[in-house]
Amino acid sequence: MKIAVDTMGGDYAPKVVVEGVERARNEFSDLEFLLFGDQEQIKKYLQDSKRITVVHTKSEILGTDEPMKAIRKKKDSSMVLAAQAVKDQKADALFSLGNTGALMAAGIFIIGRLKNIARPALMPTLPAMSDQPGICYLDAGANAEVKVSYLEQWAVMASFYAREVLGVAKPRVGLLNNGSEYDKGDRLHQEAYQALKELASVNFVGNVEADNLLKGVADVVVTDGFTGNAVLKATEGSVKILISQLKQALLTQGLRSKLGALLAKPALKSIKDTFDVSAYGGAVLMGVKAPVVKSHGSSDARTIYYALVQLRLMYNKGMLMQVMTYFDQQKKES
Amino acid sequence: MKIAVDTMGGDYAPKVVVEGVERARNEFSDLEFLLFGDQEQIKKYLQDSKRITVVHTKSEILGTDEPMKAIRKKKDSSMVLAAQAVKDQKADALFSLGNTGALMAAGIFIIGRLKNIARPALMPTLPAMSDQPGICYLDAGANAEVKVSYLEQWAVMASFYAREVLGVAKPRVGLLNNGSEYDKGDRLHQEAYQALKELASVNFVGNVEADNLLKGVADVVVTDGFTGNAVLKATEGSVKILISQLKQALLTQGLRSKLGALLAKPALKSIKDTFDVSAYGGAVLMGVKAPVVKSHGSSDARTIYYALVQLRLMYNKGMLMQVMTYFDQQKKES
Repeated sequence: MKIAVDTMGGDYAPKVVVEGVERARNEFSDLEFLLFGDQEQIKKYLQDSKRITVVHTKSEILGTDEPMKAIRKKKDSSMVLAAQAVKDQKADALFSLGNTGALMAAGIFIIGRLKNIARPALMPTLPAMSDQPGICYLDAGANAEVKVSYLEQWAVMASFYAREVLGVAKPRVGLLNNGSEYDKGDRLHQEAYQALKELASVNFVGNVEADNLLKGVADVVVTDGFTGNAVLKATEGSVKILISQLKQALLTQGLRSKLGALLAKPALKSIKDTFDVSAYGGAVLMGVKAPVVKSHGSSDARTIYYALVQLRLMYNKGMLMQVMTYFDQQKKES
Repeated sequence: MKIAVDTMGGDYAPKVVVEGVERARNEFSDLEFLLFGDQEQIKKYLQDSKRITVVHTKSEILGTDEPMKAIRKKKDSSMVLAAQAVKDQKADALFSLGNTGALMAAGIFIIGRLKNIARPALMPTLPAMSDQPGICYLDAGANAEVKVSYLEQWAVMASFYAREVLGVAKPRVGLLNNGSEYDKGDRLHQEAYQALKELASVNFVGNVEADNLLKGVADVVVTDGFTGNAVLKATEGSVKILISQLKQALLTQGLRSKLGALLAKPALKSIKDTFDVSAYGGAVLMGVKAPVVKSHGSSDARTIYYALVQLRLMYNKGMLMQVMTYFDQQKKES
C-alpha cells in the first residue's frame, strides 16, 4: 500500500510528518510513501529513505486560504499534488494536516465521491468515557445543510468503519438530537429518526443528546454538519477552559505553588489522557474514493503515526470496497 | 410587585422554594408572593407568612409529563394556576423550577406572547470567562426551527435585558455560527448575519463560534433553538465529565487519598465558582407578556432567591414595556 502524504500543513511541518511516516514505515513492511512538499526541508528530517519517495512541490495551501480557490489556483501545492497522485492511482490513500476545507475540497473534487454517495462527511473519532474504542462522529462540519438520505448513508458508512477499523461487532448508531424521544427536534431530525429506525443495515439505538455524547451510549453518532461542528467546538472549548481553570486553581488556591504544580501534573495528565484522541489518528473524509485522513494542525509525530495506521487499516480491511458493494446492491434492489 | 410562584417542581420542592421566597421577601419590601402548591407541605417550611399568600393546588406537572398535554389537562396544577394568576393580573411575574416545556407552553398559551413578537425564546445567562456580567444566550431550546426575523427580535429583546438587568451599557450581539466569516453556516445563518448587521438597534459584532462562546466575546448570543440546545448540553456535559475525571485523578493518581481530597477541594470549588450560574437566577422565557423565569430543577434556595431578584429587576426596570414600545414603533415605521 502506498500513502500520499502532504507534509506541508500544520504547525510543525514537515518535521513531525516525516517522523510519523518513518515510524510507520519501520513498523509496517507493507507501507510505502510519497511525500509531497519542500524537498530541502523534508530531507533535513528524513533519516532513511527506504520505501519513501520525496516529490518536490513549489507551493503550499495555507490555513487562511479560501478552500475552493486554493485547490483551483495552487495546482502545484503539496496538497493538490498529493490528492492528484491518489486520483492517478499512484497512491492508495491521502494524509494531510493542512487546511481542512481545502482537504475536503481536494478529496471531493480531485479524488472524487464514492459511487452512489451523495455527500462525503468529515468523521473524527471522539473519546468515549466507557470502554468502547471511541465514537465515530459525522458530519463534523463538511455539510451545513443536509437531507435525511445523507444521514442514512453516513450511518451505514460509519458502521462499516466501526466494524472494520475499530473492531466493534455490532456498532450502535445514534442520532444527535435535542431530546431522547422519537418526536424531538425539527422536522429533519424527526424524519431522520424514522428513517434510521427502518434502515435494516444499521443498529439504530435512538437519539443521543449532546450531554451524553461522550458517555458512550453509541458507537456511531450522525448529525448535520452545522450542529455537529458547533457541538464539537463547544466540547473542545469547555474542556480547554476547564483545564486552564484547573491549572490556575491548583497553583493559586492556597497551595504553595511548587506543591500545586507537582500535584497538578498527574491530574492534568490523566485528564489529557482521557480526552486524548491521538491514538484514533485523525478525521476521515468519509465517502470519497480512497481513504483520506486529516489530523489536527498541532499534531505530533505520534498522532500522525496513528493516522497512517488508520489509513492502512481502512485499506487492508477493504472498507471502502464493502461500502461500495453495499450501495451498489441497494441501488439494484430499489 | 407580586410574584406567582409554582412551588411544586424540582428536586427539593417545596422546601428550597419557600426558603428562597422568604429570603427575597425579607430583603425587598416591595415584593409580595402567591405560592401555589400543596398547602400542607408549604406550611411545613414557611416560617413567616408576611406578604406571602399560599394558594392550595391539587395536582402538579411532572418532569415526565408531555408539556402541551400537561397544561391542557392539569388545570388544577400549581404551574397552570400560577400562570393563570399572572394572566388574570393577580400577579406580575411567574417563577417555576418545574417541567421546562410545560412552563414554556404555560407562558406562551396562558400568559400569552408579547405584542408583535413572533416566537418567545428561552434565555439562560451563561458564565463568561471575562469580567462581563454573563452572556445572554437565546434560544436555548424553545424553537427547533427558526426564521431570520425571530433571531432579529431575540437580539433586540436580549439587548434590552443586558442593558436593564445586567447593566451592560452597549451590549455586543453575536450570532452563533460555525466560522467567523460572514459567509459561514447554512443559508439561514448567512442571511441572519446580514440582517443583524443591518439592524440599527443592536450592536452586532459578528459570528461567535461555539468554542469561543464562554470566552465573553459578546454579551448576547443568538442561535436557533436546535443548535442552541445542543451546544448548551455539550458544554454542560463536558464540564461534568471533566470534573468527575478530575476528582478521580486527584484521588487516585499516586497521591495518598486524604491529601488528594484535601487538595481537590479548593480546586473543585474554584472551578465550580467559575461555572456557577446561580447568581444569574434562571432562564428567562423572553417574549411573553410578563417576566417568567425558570430555574434548574436541582436549584438550591440561593439560586431561587437570585431568580426572584432577577424577576424584580425585569419588572422594576420596565424592561418588557421598553421592548413593547420598541416593536410598536418599528411596526408603525414599516
